[in-house]
Amino acid sequence: MDERYGGFTLPGEAGYEKLTLELAKKWGADVIRDSDGTKLSSEIVDAGYRIYSTICIIREHNAFALEHPETQQQTFLSSDPVLAVSDTLEIAPLAGYFDEQFQLNDSEDALPFWQVWDRTEDALVPRENWDYADGIITVRGCVPWHRYTASFLCWRVWEEINMYNHTTNHWTSEHLRQLDPRHPLAWAYLKKWLKDWCDQNPQTNVIRLTSLFYNFVWIFGSDLRRRSRFTDWASYDFTVSPAALRAFEKEYGYALTAEDFIQKGWLQATHRPPTGQKRDYMDFIQRFVADRARELVQIIHEAGKQAYVFYDDSWVGMEPYGPYFSSIGFDGLIKCVFSGFECRLCAGADVPVHELRFHPYLFPVGLGGLPTFSEGGHPEKDASDYWLHVRRALVRQSVDRIGLGGYLHLTRDYPAFQDAIEQMAVSFRRIKALHAQGAPAVLPIRVAVLHAWGCLRSWTLSGHFHETDGNALIHINEALSGLPVQVRFISFEDVKQGALRDADVVISAGRAGDAWSGGDAWRDTAVLTEVTRFVYEGGGLIGVGEPAAVSGRDTRLALAPILGVDVDHGEYACHAAWQYETDEAPFPVDTDALGFLRGVRLIAPDTRVLAEKENTPVLTVRCFGNGKAVYLADFIYSPSAARMLLDLLLFMTGTDGSAAALSDQCLVECAWFPASGALALLNNSEEETEVRVRYPGGILEEKLAPREEKIVYPKG
Amino acid sequence: MDERYGGFTLPGEAGYEKLTLELAKKWGADVIRDSDGTKLSSEIVDAGYRIYSTICIIREHNAFALEHPETQQQTFLSSDPVLAVSDTLEIAPLAGYFDEQFQLNDSEDALPFWQVWDRTEDALVPRENWDYADGIITVRGCVPWHRYTASFLCWRVWEEINMYNHTTNHWTSEHLRQLDPRHPLAWAYLKKWLKDWCDQNPQTNVIRLTSLFYNFVWIFGSDLRRRSRFTDWASYDFTVSPAALRAFEKEYGYALTAEDFIQKGWLQATHRPPTGQKRDYMDFIQRFVADRARELVQIIHEAGKQAYVFYDDSWVGMEPYGPYFSSIGFDGLIKCVFSGFECRLCAGADVPVHELRFHPYLFPVGLGGLPTFSEGGHPEKDASDYWLHVRRALVRQSVDRIGLGGYLHLTRDYPAFQDAIEQMAVSFRRIKALHAQGAPAVLPIRVAVLHAWGCLRSWTLSGHFHETDGNALIHINEALSGLPVQVRFISFEDVKQGALRDADVVISAGRAGDAWSGGDAWRDTAVLTEVTRFVYEGGGLIGVGEPAAVSGRDTRLALAPILGVDVDHGEYACHAAWQYETDEAPFPVDTDALGFLRGVRLIAPDTRVLAEKENTPVLTVRCFGNGKAVYLADFIYSPSAARMLLDLLLFMTGTDGSAAALSDQCLVECAWFPASGALALLNNSEEETEVRVRYPGGILEEKLAPREEKIVYPKG
Repeated sequence: MDERYGGFTLPGEAGYEKLTLELAKKWGADVIRDSDGTKLSSEIVDAGYRIYSTICIIREHNAFALEHPETQQQTFLSSDPVLAVSDTLEIAPLAGYFDEQFQLNDSEDALPFWQVWDRTEDALVPRENWDYADGIITVRGCVPWHRYTASFLCWRVWEEINMYNHTTNHWTSEHLRQLDPRHPLAWAYLKKWLKDWCDQNPQTNVIRLTSLFYNFVWIFGSDLRRRSRFTDWASYDFTVSPAALRAFEKEYGYALTAEDFIQKGWLQATHRPPTGQKRDYMDFIQRFVADRARELVQIIHEAGKQAYVFYDDSWVGMEPYGPYFSSIGFDGLIKCVFSGFECRLCAGADVPVHELRFHPYLFPVGLGGLPTFSEGGHPEKDASDYWLHVRRALVRQSVDRIGLGGYLHLTRDYPAFQDAIEQMAVSFRRIKALHAQGAPAVLPIRVAVLHAWGCLRSWTLSGHFHETDGNALIHINEALSGLPVQVRFISFEDVKQGALRDADVVISAGRAGDAWSGGDAWRDTAVLTEVTRFVYEGGGLIGVGEPAAVSGRDTRLALAPILGVDVDHGEYACHAAWQYETDEAPFPVDTDALGFLRGVRLIAPDTRVLAEKENTPVLTVRCFGNGKAVYLADFIYSPSAARMLLDLLLFMTGTDGSAAALSDQCLVECAWFPASGALALLNNSEEETEVRVRYPGGILEEKLAPREEKIVYPKG
Repeated sequence: MDERYGGFTLPGEAGYEKLTLELAKKWGADVIRDSDGTKLSSEIVDAGYRIYSTICIIREHNAFALEHPETQQQTFLSSDPVLAVSDTLEIAPLAGYFDEQFQLNDSEDALPFWQVWDRTEDALVPRENWDYADGIITVRGCVPWHRYTASFLCWRVWEEINMYNHTTNHWTSEHLRQLDPRHPLAWAYLKKWLKDWCDQNPQTNVIRLTSLFYNFVWIFGSDLRRRSRFTDWASYDFTVSPAALRAFEKEYGYALTAEDFIQKGWLQATHRPPTGQKRDYMDFIQRFVADRARELVQIIHEAGKQAYVFYDDSWVGMEPYGPYFSSIGFDGLIKCVFSGFECRLCAGADVPVHELRFHPYLFPVGLGGLPTFSEGGHPEKDASDYWLHVRRALVRQSVDRIGLGGYLHLTRDYPAFQDAIEQMAVSFRRIKALHAQGAPAVLPIRVAVLHAWGCLRSWTLSGHFHETDGNALIHINEALSGLPVQVRFISFEDVKQGALRDADVVISAGRAGDAWSGGDAWRDTAVLTEVTRFVYEGGGLIGVGEPAAVSGRDTRLALAPILGVDVDHGEYACHAAWQYETDEAPFPVDTDALGFLRGVRLIAPDTRVLAEKENTPVLTVRCFGNGKAVYLADFIYSPSAARMLLDLLLFMTGTDGSAAALSDQCLVECAWFPASGALALLNNSEEETEVRVRYPGGILEEKLAPREEKIVYPKG
């Protein structure tokens, strides 16, 4: 193993050839890539490195798009509601939307899909009661004091990543448009364009697709007080078009309408349970995306190149754990990572090469809008913080490569950042080498995370950690990403098919009614019955927040009779809860990690409270038949929270954690690599720490510097 | 006016004749009464005072009850759920209930009303699948892992107020039983008993009924960790019997079942919106109670006595604002009061005499379980605190009498309490005298409080303030009870009948799904449309907490499109709220009074935020058409909160508050009595306060001692 070279992708930059080659050496790069906005010069390309070329296939075809505007991408939108003060009113459909992003599609092709709704009555307005002319819908026969909306199709005339870079990073170049590969003209054009590109770029080894066709959903508003009206990193709204709708109807035998997308204006965010129609539509799109992507990969392969895909930006429909992903034939998957769960998401995908693109991106400001490579920024600190999250996951499951992206020249003034990346690259290679000798020990604890999406959304919810951190589940996933346990993501349908037969602990974590908690899926008593059986016969159940909350039952949480805990939102008016004393937990409790939820109450006398806040339980445990059920009011990720989750899993399953190495310090994590006889010790704390580790070989004592990782060979 | 005598009811006590007569003089009593547990001696009875005698008509007939156990009162209960682990299970119906309160009614009369439910499936178990024998229900054909409950009738063999006194105050006397006046034997017996009693007690001037027939609902459990399983001061569960159910079916043409009462175990608390069946049943019971009560009043009148009724204990069905109350013919209504809203409830009832029974009750411990007339108690402080609440309401609407109840001898060791009551009695008489000369000025602001119960539950929710203080509405009612505005309580049906035509401001305050917020009533678009019209045409809307929350609409609060504010419980996932700056309010904002509610967000750009906490609005205002809509995250009563509510009403309606006298100190309230030319000033603070009052006569400056009330005649 050469721990100073290999498995590293460097973003080169024309005009900074010296810097590029210097850093390539410092960081041990074997690959040089371009980025969105940068080019490689021949001096770089000819320096002996493998070359990745970034292509966003549907973008950078403005001339074609202007010539064939009907090939551009679309979406459904709903107007803001208009109050009827008489029996007639007018709706300007796009009022309040960003006019640089959207243009009405009032073509003959699109108008039949438009709808007008009485949202007060929740009733479709008959077509004969409204007219459209010159950008205005006139509705007649209105009921005074009711509110009306129009649902309509519009063109998306500014590719959203480009729009983001302009509005966030003050780009001033031409607004880029995007083509819909469903349009035959566009698709023929794009295939030819890709073939030509391959012919013209013999130096490229890997085409790095960023990503495929349909962007996640960013709907901008006209008012800066609400610029991002809607942001969903996993939604399918931007895949729609009259052609798609007609093809869907032909295949499925029923038609989707605007309302299947608009949903009263809620737009069916990924955090909400999908309707059956949405599931059908997603499968329809996934197959389309896979079919088209397969053609692209074939062109790339025929040109003697490899096709890697970047899992971000226009990735909708190519979910790496979706049913068609592996059929596309990508040679590699590249995932940008802030967090451990993203590392696991990449590492576990069925694809030959797994590559992580580290954050921070080499950009003046970060995704959260704070400075990175600009005044006030501390990119070396950011990189180290993200590394602490990713490192935990890396020792559990190997990836093949790491790298960076962006403007390399921005790093010039940040030598501490350059040094930090050098050190991370070395650490990465050491960990990768361990994995190469044999996998780390995993405890015999099979965790099944249960939610509406199941394996399609393994590890992720919808976007990055900081975009979804109001959800307990992403914190759970982040904690699990670095634990020595087996993790699987299952759906309610999977439960009915017997998935719990292969699980030791099932986790349900969400807010009432969301896709993670499950919502109406819990009306299916077959699911509830199977979870009840599972726990009663010895399984473990962890419920977090408002798991399995559903209205109309005799408890608010469908799982409450197992947990012995329910969450009162007023239903329990006049009913007393069981009083309790707080018991000492059989493991250290990180109360900060447990949050607080008003209304949690005991509904069974044998529920034991292990922690409380404001006279309200935040951590309980109950024996249920031969199993155990644990309730957490919330779960907020931190290294010590992750350790508490591990302790909880050990407690619930009666497992001895030392089989995978267990430290006596909650901020130090361990991995035992039996084939190497090596222990990887990760100090997640800011302090020098003396640690005592129990592992299959006995007991090890070590001292670790702040944030240090150390690989030791106790018998070596 | 004699401010030292009259309008005062003193609880006398045999054995303490000297004390009784001394305190009667000190407090200016004109009436002496007995209490539950005390007697009057002839020395007291013959001392020249009018005499009230307390009678709980359905209680103290143990010999009859034991001889005719079938005449006792009953209730439906549901067993706790039992998990099926095979296809057969057994249910012991009363397991977990207090066996001194309940006995199974497994008579041939009652068994047909029993039910067994599969609560997992929410399905009634066919009668042929279960048997009952020797106190045990055996269910066959169970689905493993489903949960089953039994609903059953049982006798209530311990009158609940007596049970409370035993369990709380350690009484050791015989447990008293209670008769159901619906049973013909019991009714004949009770009427005769009352006639005999009247004959045997010629000295009694007023029979003080405590109260009528059916107690509010206290369901005790066997385990002290959950002794009070269910407590609802306004529920009708204790009125039920096979006879009542059969009479109902005969009259209404449809049968009620156990499930109409059990409701999956939720028991349909008063805080939850009633079903149509419950409304029918309540009307049925109200008419029955009024009919029977009318007969009692007739007996009392025929004996030359008056009939006063105490509005507490067994009052269910005789709500003073119910449709049949005034038809009963009571001569007086007595209400125990901790709070201003209770004072207004009494003062506004359609009955000749209105009397308040002050707290604390002369008992060792108070209703909340804390000491009063025992070690650690400060009864003079308690009395003064309650007085501060009641006084505000007393200056707005007159009552005729005040008084006390309990064991007079307990006051011996509390001279400060004796002095405090003396002072309150004087204050009460002064205020009453002002009212006698002419009512105080009221502002032209007509407030309509809107909820599911409308006028039936005017002023009150379900019980005392401290039992319902988790509801914003009781805080609102308490504030309104002392404000110089007109207040009315309306239902959703009233709104549809045009009640808002007579209102200036409508208030909706509650939690999602409760009776105060309205729940499914907001699915009726006629209600929403009418409120929308009302505000648009110039009315005011105050929404507090989660007003009009209902699922399945395009906003979570049905009123959100008017308020410009909604409360996100996850539905808004991925949708951005409008950003805002906080504006200065046109009146002093008491931020403590506004509480906090997670998820509040702006959904309209023109909503102005007047106060926020944790980056979340807690007070907003929005112009909507010609009206104004105000949102408060919560409302927590205090004198300054009440003043903020008044300021808000003045601001919303553009009213000049000085017409009813307005102070420049938020803790000093004023009432202007134009007929007397008098200003009543109430210092609600603990500080000496200099106050400047604007009133129709000009400006008055005064200095008030802590908690002082002062009546001044500025032109006198």
